[in-house]
Amino acid sequence: MPRSVLVTGGCGFIGSHLVDRLLRRDDLERLVVVDNLWTGLRDNIAHVADPRFSLRIADAETFTAGRDFDEIIHLASPASPVWYMREPARTIRANIGGALNLLSLLKPGGRFCFASTSEVYGDPHVSPQPESYRGFVDCTGPRASYDESKRCTEALLFEEQRISGLDIRVVRLFNTYGPRTRIDDGRAVSNFISQALTTGILTVYGDGSQSRSWGYVDDIVDGLERFFWRDSVSHQGPLNIGNNREVSVLEIAKFVSSLAPGSRIEHHAPAPQDPSNRCPDLTLARQVLPGWEARTGYEEGIQRTFEWFRRQIATDGRSAASA
Amino acid sequence: MPRSVLVTGGCGFIGSHLVDRLLRRDDLERLVVVDNLWTGLRDNIAHVADPRFSLRIADAETFTAGRDFDEIIHLASPASPVWYMREPARTIRANIGGALNLLSLLKPGGRFCFASTSEVYGDPHVSPQPESYRGFVDCTGPRASYDESKRCTEALLFEEQRISGLDIRVVRLFNTYGPRTRIDDGRAVSNFISQALTTGILTVYGDGSQSRSWGYVDDIVDGLERFFWRDSVSHQGPLNIGNNREVSVLEIAKFVSSLAPGSRIEHHAPAPQDPSNRCPDLTLARQVLPGWEARTGYEEGIQRTFEWFRRQIATDGRSAASA
Repeated sequence: MPRSVLVTGGCGFIGSHLVDRLLRRDDLERLVVVDNLWTGLRDNIAHVADPRFSLRIADAETFTAGRDFDEIIHLASPASPVWYMREPARTIRANIGGALNLLSLLKPGGRFCFASTSEVYGDPHVSPQPESYRGFVDCTGPRASYDESKRCTEALLFEEQRISGLDIRVVRLFNTYGPRTRIDDGRAVSNFISQALTTGILTVYGDGSQSRSWGYVDDIVDGLERFFWRDSVSHQGPLNIGNNREVSVLEIAKFVSSLAPGSRIEHHAPAPQDPSNRCPDLTLARQVLPGWEARTGYEEGIQRTFEWFRRQIATDGRSAASA
Repeated sequence: MPRSVLVTGGCGFIGSHLVDRLLRRDDLERLVVVDNLWTGLRDNIAHVADPRFSLRIADAETFTAGRDFDEIIHLASPASPVWYMREPARTIRANIGGALNLLSLLKPGGRFCFASTSEVYGDPHVSPQPESYRGFVDCTGPRASYDESKRCTEALLFEEQRISGLDIRVVRLFNTYGPRTRIDDGRAVSNFISQALTTGILTVYGDGSQSRSWGYVDDIVDGLERFFWRDSVSHQGPLNIGNNREVSVLEIAKFVSSLAPGSRIEHHAPAPQDPSNRCPDLTLARQVLPGWEARTGYEEGIQRTFEWFRRQIATDGRSAASA
């Protein structure tokens, strides 16, 4: 049965990787990407040359279409604190306004997939975090536009599942990194790499002892592909998708610095309400997606990302010089 | 300085009481109530005859006005689980969509007041609950449309305060009861009273040991009036407003039953994710609103409410008979 699929945020970091996977599907009839290029980049999908694909520059919350879709994958949202803290209302609108609008574009019986976040756990008091953990989020805090709009969009989808049987797939993504991250994204891995390649000074907020679980994008998108469309599973989420090797921010900074001789680390004041730890409990993911695992260690993943950033910066430099 | 004020949900239970208070203000130039009559009732404001007052039947999330307002008080939302669990998407739209829309109708330097809820604390592990408690809400649960949309609306407002200095007043209301509650509201006090006056069978969900802090509407609206416009305070919220006498649901049922000889209590299966306890920590309220206290005990408040319901049911009966 040929399927029409809508992806919001498809020019983004994770979205564009997912677009590549979607275009490998034999049952894909039509793929529409909706992106307002707030944090997404046209470059991320510039390589796509597939007649089934089209791009619409629009906001997820106001996008309209002549026809409805069999599957909607809602990724439209900034994911870096630097970006969402600057425009909180817009972040809320993209997530919740987006979901409310997109639900009206889904065919009856269609599937709605949503990328939620480990940030729904806030600064967790339980480690690792299972999906059942209710979280520790300050709904009045400086990260709340993101954390709470993800939580509320989850609420909307699980409520729609409960009252109308909506077919949903909700994942909670942990820190993801890799090629196609914006150079000015502002999160740890991309920050360290772009700093190592430019100024040579890597800024660590606080003492760097805060831990994260760093997921290389290919592994994460493997999980999304299987959960969103490839595997036939009854679980609809939420499902943690991440790498459960917990590593401190400082260790990552040191590793990146080791790739750029002459670079050094500088400590700055801690970021407000920066979670102290973050690690996915993958018990459920192993049951739902047997054999799936985020296998890429940070050493390998960061080296690949480092090389990609190096090429990007070189290309940008050449473009700037020839402009 | 004459003030123009917009109240969403002004035909509702708490909203209509607040309208009465607003109309006592000498500095009030214009009061617009926006209500879609989803849970609000025209009857609640039928007594209002003030040339400064007007009613617009519209949704908070799409309402437009020719002029902007000095003060906006956003109360539009169902507050009873019976109502919001039936239409979760609409609940989310009213709260967050409402706030996003209304912010565009506020004059520069204007004040935005929002009625949040003790439900942001979920099923709390801390008692009493101070405003700093981050809560224990299941964002995928059957009450999530209400709890999470209140949380996310708080997030929006505190973010706007942070990034643009928006003047906000955010209260977290605990269980409020009193005259002008819908007879079919579905929450404990109104349920018990209308059952006592009709079928004579009061339904208690679970064993009734779950506790609440029952605030009589006049006391609660005293607090709102002082915090929203009367007192000059620097604190912008969140602020707990409630009665901190914690009483079990069963005790309330027994008291109501004692007012209706011949009535009896029946236990039904527990409501899903019904919080086990709820009690406001009023330390901050006492600092911010010195001398304010929810003084009305449940015995007195329920008796007044009981009499009001009795008259309502009699009037409805007469109306029906004469129709």
